Amino acid sequence: MFVLGIDPGLTRCGYGAVVREGSFLRAVAAGVLTTSAGDELPDRLAELQGGLRALMSDLAPAAVAVERVFFQVNARTAMSVGQASGLALAEASAAGCAVAQYTANEVKQAVTGFGGAPKEQVQRMVQAQLSLVERPRPPDVADALALALCHHAMAPLRARVAGAQRRQR
Amino acid sequence: MFVLGIDPGLTRCGYGAVVREGSFLRAVAAGVLTTSAGDELPDRLAELQGGLRALMSDLAPAAVAVERVFFQVNARTAMSVGQASGLALAEASAAGCAVAQYTANEVKQAVTGFGGAPKEQVQRMVQAQLSLVERPRPPDVADALALALCHHAMAPLRARVAGAQRRQR
Repeated sequence: MFVLGIDPGLTRCGYGAVVREGSFLRAVAAGVLTTSAGDELPDRLAELQGGLRALMSDLAPAAVAVERVFFQVNARTAMSVGQASGLALAEASAAGCAVAQYTANEVKQAVTGFGGAPKEQVQRMVQAQLSLVERPRPPDVADALALALCHHAMAPLRARVAGAQRRQR
Repeated sequence: MFVLGIDPGLTRCGYGAVVREGSFLRAVAAGVLTTSAGDELPDRLAELQGGLRALMSDLAPAAVAVERVFFQVNARTAMSVGQASGLALAEASAAGCAVAQYTANEVKQAVTGFGGAPKEQVQRMVQAQLSLVERPRPPDVADALALALCHHAMAPLRARVAGAQRRQR
């Protein structure tokens, strides 16, 4: 399964694609989509949307895992993160991908075994699980790869739960 | 000038297009884009995105006015409203429209002269200014038409301010 993780953001939107080959997980693409803080919000959102659409088209992932965003202390940032997440979810669905959302804690739990793990531990575990020669940077890239790893770990369970729910109806 | 107002929302997204003909303002299109609460969020966002894109393409407005959203008490609703607004802003910019955001209070102030006006008063003023035979319904449509009227009222002032700022640089 080919999973694209997306850590939504307007100034920096991290992405990381992870494919499973047998029992081996391999990173096939990772990077950051950026927009300039000096541009107008609608233009930045349109630019991000175009970048996300190009990613889906170029990589053609089977599934997309997007970080589930909540309202934070900084309401101004949270709104732009929410808007960026909306674009990512819409583009992934429009591209025909399966789409899942995970909270930051769910990702940490899946990747490190501890929902409150610090950033550095997540980065080290992402590096180890993907056999990367160095730690993934910037943090947006590490978070996006962690989202993809989380979906690889959780997707079989989610499929079983969904199947059981269907049978109960 | 042809202005499309958009009252963003995931379950109901109101739109209303208003054209100025001399000193006369006329509503040329109004309605609501809806998505089903029973569908998955990414699919609903993709559906809304497609509907917004079709609107921009069919109507080809010169300017799009979108309600500026803030975090409300209900964080769950606010996030989906924020995501819907992000799609509207991105689609409007991608379609080459001028894009403006107005708070609900700015719209009420522009349309009724009072920023704290109740919904009914906004609806009556929209009806009067556009010479509609009945009050625009549902409220999402009235709000979208009010956004378009607000931009018609504010755009000349905004253009003068922007011009003055450019000259000062």
